[in-house]
Amino acid sequence: MTTILRASAILTLSEPSLIWDGYLVFDETGILETGLQTGFQAHQYPDAQVINLGNRVLFPGFIQTHIHLCQTLFRGLADDLNLLDWLQNRIFPFENAHTAASMKVSAELGILELLSNGTTTLMDMGSVRHYEAVLEAAERLGIRGFFGKALMDDNPLFPSLSEPADEALASLDAQIGTWHGRDHGRIRMAVTPRFVLSCTPKLMKEAYDRVRQDRSLRYHTHSSEQISELAEVRKRFGLDNVELFHSMGLLGPETLLAHCIWLNDREKDLLKSTQTRILHCPSSNLKLGSGIAGVPALATSGIQVSLGADGAPCNNSLDPFTEMRLAALIQKPVNGPTAMPARQVFRMATSGGAEALGLEQETGQLRPGLKADLVAVSLDSLRLPVSPETEDDLYSALVYSAQRDLVTDVWVNSKAVKRNGELLVADEAEILFSARKELKALKSRL
Amino acid sequence: MTTILRASAILTLSEPSLIWDGYLVFDETGILETGLQTGFQAHQYPDAQVINLGNRVLFPGFIQTHIHLCQTLFRGLADDLNLLDWLQNRIFPFENAHTAASMKVSAELGILELLSNGTTTLMDMGSVRHYEAVLEAAERLGIRGFFGKALMDDNPLFPSLSEPADEALASLDAQIGTWHGRDHGRIRMAVTPRFVLSCTPKLMKEAYDRVRQDRSLRYHTHSSEQISELAEVRKRFGLDNVELFHSMGLLGPETLLAHCIWLNDREKDLLKSTQTRILHCPSSNLKLGSGIAGVPALATSGIQVSLGADGAPCNNSLDPFTEMRLAALIQKPVNGPTAMPARQVFRMATSGGAEALGLEQETGQLRPGLKADLVAVSLDSLRLPVSPETEDDLYSALVYSAQRDLVTDVWVNSKAVKRNGELLVADEAEILFSARKELKALKSRL
Repeated sequence: MTTILRASAILTLSEPSLIWDGYLVFDETGILETGLQTGFQAHQYPDAQVINLGNRVLFPGFIQTHIHLCQTLFRGLADDLNLLDWLQNRIFPFENAHTAASMKVSAELGILELLSNGTTTLMDMGSVRHYEAVLEAAERLGIRGFFGKALMDDNPLFPSLSEPADEALASLDAQIGTWHGRDHGRIRMAVTPRFVLSCTPKLMKEAYDRVRQDRSLRYHTHSSEQISELAEVRKRFGLDNVELFHSMGLLGPETLLAHCIWLNDREKDLLKSTQTRILHCPSSNLKLGSGIAGVPALATSGIQVSLGADGAPCNNSLDPFTEMRLAALIQKPVNGPTAMPARQVFRMATSGGAEALGLEQETGQLRPGLKADLVAVSLDSLRLPVSPETEDDLYSALVYSAQRDLVTDVWVNSKAVKRNGELLVADEAEILFSARKELKALKSRL
Repeated sequence: MTTILRASAILTLSEPSLIWDGYLVFDETGILETGLQTGFQAHQYPDAQVINLGNRVLFPGFIQTHIHLCQTLFRGLADDLNLLDWLQNRIFPFENAHTAASMKVSAELGILELLSNGTTTLMDMGSVRHYEAVLEAAERLGIRGFFGKALMDDNPLFPSLSEPADEALASLDAQIGTWHGRDHGRIRMAVTPRFVLSCTPKLMKEAYDRVRQDRSLRYHTHSSEQISELAEVRKRFGLDNVELFHSMGLLGPETLLAHCIWLNDREKDLLKSTQTRILHCPSSNLKLGSGIAGVPALATSGIQVSLGADGAPCNNSLDPFTEMRLAALIQKPVNGPTAMPARQVFRMATSGGAEALGLEQETGQLRPGLKADLVAVSLDSLRLPVSPETEDDLYSALVYSAQRDLVTDVWVNSKAVKRNGELLVADEAEILFSARKELKALKSRL
């Protein structure tokens, strides 16, 4: 089925970067063409469905590169704690109490929130057990992404949430075999050791061997998030996180490190020279009291930085608009009001996310040959600038003023998941009913 | 007309602070009673309208103590600039180009956004001219607040946006005479010199004489916002802002100072000893690169702090949810993750705002005798904690997860302004049409 979308503005993140009164044609294979409505020969697509989006801006779906779907059920249950307490006393016990049923609904809650707010691609870090429930939810609900169970074989903070290295790797290998590349590459796998304080060096390294053998996998872990974590890493290994990863041979363009707030200069050089990517999570970094990552200088130095909401209990949303606005605003008191302009942040949240994941030939821009991962936002709102006239006006509207309530339409992989403000892929009331039941049961298991 | 509201949770900000499965009765005079639905004798109100809000939480309307309605039309037109450039090159020329018609629609845009997001009371700082258009819009659209034209008699940044002190004071006096106390006190007046860099000391002091004569007025100005502003104030007066205000006799419980980021220790003591209030604007302070106000320590020391979104061009929203979340999050990297818990921030945005304005016997809590300024937020959302069980769970949901899209119902002064997600007091499309026309005309006048 071919679809022709008409919209008053299209931000392509490609060339030309902005089309006023534009059209975009896609079919089940992806985007066929974009252009100006004036002069467009619609009759060359005689059977196409035509959707006039009116005064909406169309742009590539948001890409969030650091999410924990397994934690969505725990939103609001772990506020006002620092990282290690937050893990030890709340998140690890909660994750440990998951069943396949509670894991399923946690993933569904998260994926529906993400689709509804215009996030079409994510990279997920799971828990130790029941990860198939996340993969099944992602496949069924239609989001794109990289997925990986958390690998943990040495977790002194909560020993029962771990498994021997060989078991962890065996179940990882089985999941890669079953899931990597499903639905024409919509579902892909990442190798996901949780962080150095819950993994043996042996596991960290043997896990990376999978990436060495198949460079279409990703390597996803946490790094350099909090001072207290840093102190513990130094005590145990005599090195900082990124230096340690380097000594183990784990850095490279397939490696993505969440947070990277506390980096020494040598580590910054290592990230740059190895093309290792940073996953920036501004809300989470503030809420856990971790700090503010030095993103403007890191990005200027050529290090790839993308955005993610992290897990629901440390945010407590999974909202790309909130993360974009915060990523811009928190830099300005230190780096001046011109730091992190809206255009740069919007790129980080879309095409930059695709580059982070090595998906720039698939998504993150609107151009022929790429997948149809699309979001439309209404420009008829009292809460937006009343008359955006330039490309920067649109970025300002989307980064500084818009919120998720203005997302009207979302397509992932050519499939409509939201239209005119209504989510199409699941019954929200049913999911909420199930989530309440599963959370109650999970609490009783604690 | 008496109305009985039933809701699954009522946060009163009074005693008892939380009622699960509660009711609230109000009539045109205000709140009559609250309590548990179990055992409630509804038949004592035989002619009452009964509204079952279902699984929504009802709480006192948000109070934003620092807003510039005259600037709403300029949203998105002044990004990524520091304060003095922002004023000189954008905001002052824009304000100077206002007509009564553009001022009217700017106020309408702002008031409708505020009502829709649950803000029932504001304190507004206007511009030099056309302030009647703001007052008329506020009276007509039904919001509560303190209003004041900006007094400016010496504005080197943009000389034509100023007027002689005697003219400024004469028009202020006329507006006080006409508007102060209108609609049973819903509309009140504030004496509003813009800041010390646009006013002569004579004007600052003679303006304060109005407050000395009538303590029901408020004195509202900016203070200690940016380092560059501070340097200029020191250069011109040899003192910092608050010290200067003290030397002029301007401090006291009727005086409210926006920002107060850069305070010396003597100034903090002065604010405390005089009961002068701080109006905290976290988004604006980040976006203009101003800094982060030291709110936890200021509040602990006993200084009254409330919240406001400031003007649309430095935020770029007027959203109390955004300001609450940010007020909590920005303190945690410096003061630790337990600083500014959700409960404290929610109080700042509701009952704290009422205390700031001296309206604690009128609004900011839900108890008999107070005005019916009410907001309901849906708890049936995939974006909220799924099963809030405690009072702190509700504050977490409202501060960390909720956004304006979950505000379903708003009453101000017993009058419904939003019901089931629909704004009742104006046609949004009509206002937007008018705003576009007026902005275009205003730009052509620049």
